[in-house]
Amino acid sequence: MAFLDDRYLLSGDTAVGLYEGVQALPIIDAHNHADVRALAEDRHFSDIWEAEAATDHYVWECLRKRGVPERLLTGAADNRDKWQALAEAFPDLVGNPTYEWVHLDLKRRFGIEATIDRDSAAAIWERTRAALAEPGMSQQALIRAMGVEAMCSTDDPVDSLEHHQRLQSSPLAGVVRPTFRPDRAMAIFKPDWRDYVGRLEQRVNGRFEHVRDLVAALQVTHDYFAENRCVASDHGVEVPYGYQVSEADADAAFCKARRAQALSPAECVGFMSYILNEVAEMDAAKGWVFQLHMGAVRDVRERLRQDLGPDTGGDVSDHATELLRPLNPLLNRFDDRLQIVLYHLNPIHTGTLAQLTRAYGAKVNLGVAWWLNDSWIGMKRQLEYIGSVDALMNLAGMVSDSRKVMSYGSRHEMFRRTLADVVGAMVDRGQMPLRLAERLVTHLCYERPKTLFGLV
Amino acid sequence: MAFLDDRYLLSGDTAVGLYEGVQALPIIDAHNHADVRALAEDRHFSDIWEAEAATDHYVWECLRKRGVPERLLTGAADNRDKWQALAEAFPDLVGNPTYEWVHLDLKRRFGIEATIDRDSAAAIWERTRAALAEPGMSQQALIRAMGVEAMCSTDDPVDSLEHHQRLQSSPLAGVVRPTFRPDRAMAIFKPDWRDYVGRLEQRVNGRFEHVRDLVAALQVTHDYFAENRCVASDHGVEVPYGYQVSEADADAAFCKARRAQALSPAECVGFMSYILNEVAEMDAAKGWVFQLHMGAVRDVRERLRQDLGPDTGGDVSDHATELLRPLNPLLNRFDDRLQIVLYHLNPIHTGTLAQLTRAYGAKVNLGVAWWLNDSWIGMKRQLEYIGSVDALMNLAGMVSDSRKVMSYGSRHEMFRRTLADVVGAMVDRGQMPLRLAERLVTHLCYERPKTLFGLV
Amino acid sequence: MAFLDDRYLLSGDTAVGLYEGVQALPIIDAHNHADVRALAEDRHFSDIWEAEAATDHYVWECLRKRGVPERLLTGAADNRDKWQALAEAFPDLVGNPTYEWVHLDLKRRFGIEATIDRDSAAAIWERTRAALAEPGMSQQALIRAMGVEAMCSTDDPVDSLEHHQRLQSSPLAGVVRPTFRPDRAMAIFKPDWRDYVGRLEQRVNGRFEHVRDLVAALQVTHDYFAENRCVASDHGVEVPYGYQVSEADADAAFCKARRAQALSPAECVGFMSYILNEVAEMDAAKGWVFQLHMGAVRDVRERLRQDLGPDTGGDVSDHATELLRPLNPLLNRFDDRLQIVLYHLNPIHTGTLAQLTRAYGAKVNLGVAWWLNDSWIGMKRQLEYIGSVDALMNLAGMVSDSRKVMSYGSRHEMFRRTLADVVGAMVDRGQMPLRLAERLVTHLCYERPKTLFGLV
Repeated sequence: MAFLDDRYLLSGDTAVGLYEGVQALPIIDAHNHADVRALAEDRHFSDIWEAEAATDHYVWECLRKRGVPERLLTGAADNRDKWQALAEAFPDLVGNPTYEWVHLDLKRRFGIEATIDRDSAAAIWERTRAALAEPGMSQQALIRAMGVEAMCSTDDPVDSLEHHQRLQSSPLAGVVRPTFRPDRAMAIFKPDWRDYVGRLEQRVNGRFEHVRDLVAALQVTHDYFAENRCVASDHGVEVPYGYQVSEADADAAFCKARRAQALSPAECVGFMSYILNEVAEMDAAKGWVFQLHMGAVRDVRERLRQDLGPDTGGDVSDHATELLRPLNPLLNRFDDRLQIVLYHLNPIHTGTLAQLTRAYGAKVNLGVAWWLNDSWIGMKRQLEYIGSVDALMNLAGMVSDSRKVMSYGSRHEMFRRTLADVVGAMVDRGQMPLRLAERLVTHLCYERPKTLFGLV
Repeated sequence: MAFLDDRYLLSGDTAVGLYEGVQALPIIDAHNHADVRALAEDRHFSDIWEAEAATDHYVWECLRKRGVPERLLTGAADNRDKWQALAEAFPDLVGNPTYEWVHLDLKRRFGIEATIDRDSAAAIWERTRAALAEPGMSQQALIRAMGVEAMCSTDDPVDSLEHHQRLQSSPLAGVVRPTFRPDRAMAIFKPDWRDYVGRLEQRVNGRFEHVRDLVAALQVTHDYFAENRCVASDHGVEVPYGYQVSEADADAAFCKARRAQALSPAECVGFMSYILNEVAEMDAAKGWVFQLHMGAVRDVRERLRQDLGPDTGGDVSDHATELLRPLNPLLNRFDDRLQIVLYHLNPIHTGTLAQLTRAYGAKVNLGVAWWLNDSWIGMKRQLEYIGSVDALMNLAGMVSDSRKVMSYGSRHEMFRRTLADVVGAMVDRGQMPLRLAERLVTHLCYERPKTLFGLV
Repeated sequence: MAFLDDRYLLSGDTAVGLYEGVQALPIIDAHNHADVRALAEDRHFSDIWEAEAATDHYVWECLRKRGVPERLLTGAADNRDKWQALAEAFPDLVGNPTYEWVHLDLKRRFGIEATIDRDSAAAIWERTRAALAEPGMSQQALIRAMGVEAMCSTDDPVDSLEHHQRLQSSPLAGVVRPTFRPDRAMAIFKPDWRDYVGRLEQRVNGRFEHVRDLVAALQVTHDYFAENRCVASDHGVEVPYGYQVSEADADAAFCKARRAQALSPAECVGFMSYILNEVAEMDAAKGWVFQLHMGAVRDVRERLRQDLGPDTGGDVSDHATELLRPLNPLLNRFDDRLQIVLYHLNPIHTGTLAQLTRAYGAKVNLGVAWWLNDSWIGMKRQLEYIGSVDALMNLAGMVSDSRKVMSYGSRHEMFRRTLADVVGAMVDRGQMPLRLAERLVTHLCYERPKTLFGLV
């Protein structure tokens, strides 16, 4: 088959038929890392490097594997040279989803069929540079062109949400929503936690004597997010800190940390568990969705963290990470009164989490394969398996998790094709009637996330 | 392909041919949870809910995922309403093996081709209700109609085995055997352990001063099970308690627990390890098969345990569960003098266990993918992998592990089709001659469990 | 398809085409356990048992699973009887790669198409016995016939490398290289460590007062290996001991162990970590490749270790083995200044390691699926997955890891077919252009290991 052919990822006629039924559905992207300011300002990307690579550590990591130096990734080189370096390394990246996503973007957004390499680099640069200046290529126009009906960015509690507000009087009015992500308030083990708490004090114009004051401030911002159409919180945690901890214990840790005293690991875990449970209570009270992104071990490569800061490619996951023991107390506490979505990064955790979501009934849901796991093979293996334990119909739906506006269409296209392929194969094996397969696929691509997150 | 077509789960002609060769072989079901009393009384199921769902927490869990309330699952609603609720939710469960098993039962046992939904519910209810009253649908008749040649139920040491005895003068004479499962005697950490030990004292008309008295009582019941045609023990354990522990240490724990003193985790593990090893000695002496069902973390969802009791759907497994370290001492102790079958629940444990069974020669065997793992994809991934490490010929064979008489045929049919498909694909890739593939498949579907368990 | 047909393991025309392109490429086998003395002496195998089974614990383990007694495996029986026992059990081993490898050897090296069984055993014995006496079947001739361009054996630092030297004036001049494997110097927890240190003292004609003397002796042998064309070190470790430990702490452990005092586990880990880091420094200074074979839990089956010694079949892996935490300090210390190859045995570790190699850029590489994992299914699942995270182009290439000269061709053939099949399927799904798939496959089968290990 030709590269990115119409039947891309679809191995049978049943899969093709299923995909055709969902191909044109609007996109619901309930979790991403959109630059809301750039969206609100309706910026244009200056060039294809900025659009495809400048903010995308997926691309950096792949290029590092092929020896591209930092100067041409995150350094001072100009974008034209960076694009050239990317183009020269790109043929070495076949098999990685980044290769497919970027080419899909070129094909769908620019009508470019050429593959990226040393020879095509210049022509693609020129052609995309011209195209990106067109009115139809502003960030808001891109969102509309990709058929995004609803999307949720990821925002800190101290965020003013001014850009979200500004978007309400743009052509994207009603489309973009914030998500409440209080990771920094929780991360008591980090050196900048005290500074962050100071910012939160400023935000509510208060002074925190005790952990209850911090929680009260989070409640204020939680309410404010709700006024700004937020429907979900999200939490990036290495271990799901779901232990049940008393206010007194959490307060003791809080007070020590405020005085810059060192905490034991158990004190850190206790504090984080306390805050996570408190935010879950806020979510339950408002009917929000509580999302846990679990298992990322951050910044393991020290050089990247030192030279470039956090979240620049040194993040991995660990098969040995415990999930069941720390997560279960929270699941029990909120049994049937909180919509929960669990995302996991290491494919090894699929079985444990699918069995857990099965056990907890209608409101505990598995999220789509996340981050390093959201490739074709990662999603395929997850989708093939989870329905055998949990109900596939309960999957929370695709989220792009992306910083890169340009890629939302390609991300959702890969998911829809993979889902159609997995479900099509089930039909072809006689495991379900075609009519119900069509219903399942449509549900997961559109109604499911829309209803679950209340994006109406 | 049509749903549950003749080629269901068979992706090539080779697989079809292999399946045709084993389709009609008698069923050997060496581990299940049959209600022996109901069998002995040759009861009829009152209706399709009772036959398919009333005792099956697989079904409850799936329906809970789709929001069906307990009243319509385990509660006071009448069976007709429960069936209607099931039927309305069932189309949402495509992709889950329960969807396939129940439809297979309808097709094979009742000749019903319709799919279950809101519209078909009433007609299926009526038709199956009439059919279930027919003489050919008594529980004994069902067992015979499914071609079950031998089956082993799961029984407590204190069981009188009266129903097994009664079956010996029924048309199922010689078919049903008990299995010795002393979980309750081992579970020293449970609140009802002391009561249970009292029942065991009554059973042997004795008074246990020391752990050796408990072991002696187990020996008495073990002997009694042997007289009643038992050929295997079975043990449901979160961690395989195979540590080597002295009688003195086990006795100290026993005496403390009898006096209602709290035990440390290490004392519990020590006691359970001691008992497990002692039962393994009894099995070795009699030439029984020692079965370990490992890795189930029980009753994690507290609400279910509180409202409905244990084993009602709150059971999961954990990728992080240790197997090698606790199991290895037992494997060494009984090296080559005990037939062992290891069953696992989390797909992540396949590699560790397959490598372990490989290392221990002819008498340590892998069991089929268990419980939440015995779906099409669970069995397929296990069967594809284990032969690459262990010998596929050494797999212990299919067991239904089911409480539900109606389902034995469908469970074994899914296994046979999956096995034929996996082995057929090996033939189609040139990995083995067809003739030996036929031999392998026939062996695993029939001779292997028959010989391993001595069901002759 | 017929057994071992031309399309063996190749499921589509694209895969066939890709395989045809790499089928005849020379073999680069950068890690094996060749008997270099036998090679240097250009010995002939006396018979097919000696060639295929006498040194291969893969074969022993499989035959043990089918009840073949030690007498006919590792015992005193004569080779003819051992071969007969193998032949009688062999049809039971379909599905295990050993079945395919041995038949591939017969087909490729002897032109024998028959399958091995009771009836064919005698004829195969006679025919291979005659063939093995032919000049074209000496060990050197076999290496040449299989197209081995470069291969690296595994050697102890105290080895004189005399056989490697002798090979330099043979027809294999330039082909065979040693690998520096100081496992015994590291294994301070083993009873024979002190004896071994004595041998190392003899080797350098010195007396070790402190750990620095041991390290200096390793440096002497490291240099000597370099003079003898060595390009890599290799380390077999259960856990990757990459912790950063001070010389003082390592020396304290060293001095205690030398005085035959018992060490704590932490002292053992500290010492081993220190030595591993020191050898990595030597490798970095010389531009060698540093290979870690991780996760083998050795000699779990005590009977085998007692009766036959280590490495005779009682080796397994454990899903629960920690890799990230102990390995990461070493990866950070040598960031971008050492070529590292990570091999893993338990399929569960693939995700963690692929994500880790992704994070560390161009010099940290994943090795091919190792040992019990290098079957068709083990390699297929690894190859399908790792490109989705890491760059497939960065895979370190196939290594046979074998003691058995006869098998190098079959091992590399299985890898090449599996790779062609995995990549061919990617082309058939539209995930990459055919032209780049051809380039990728050729690269991994030949240029990649040649360049990575500097085998020029």
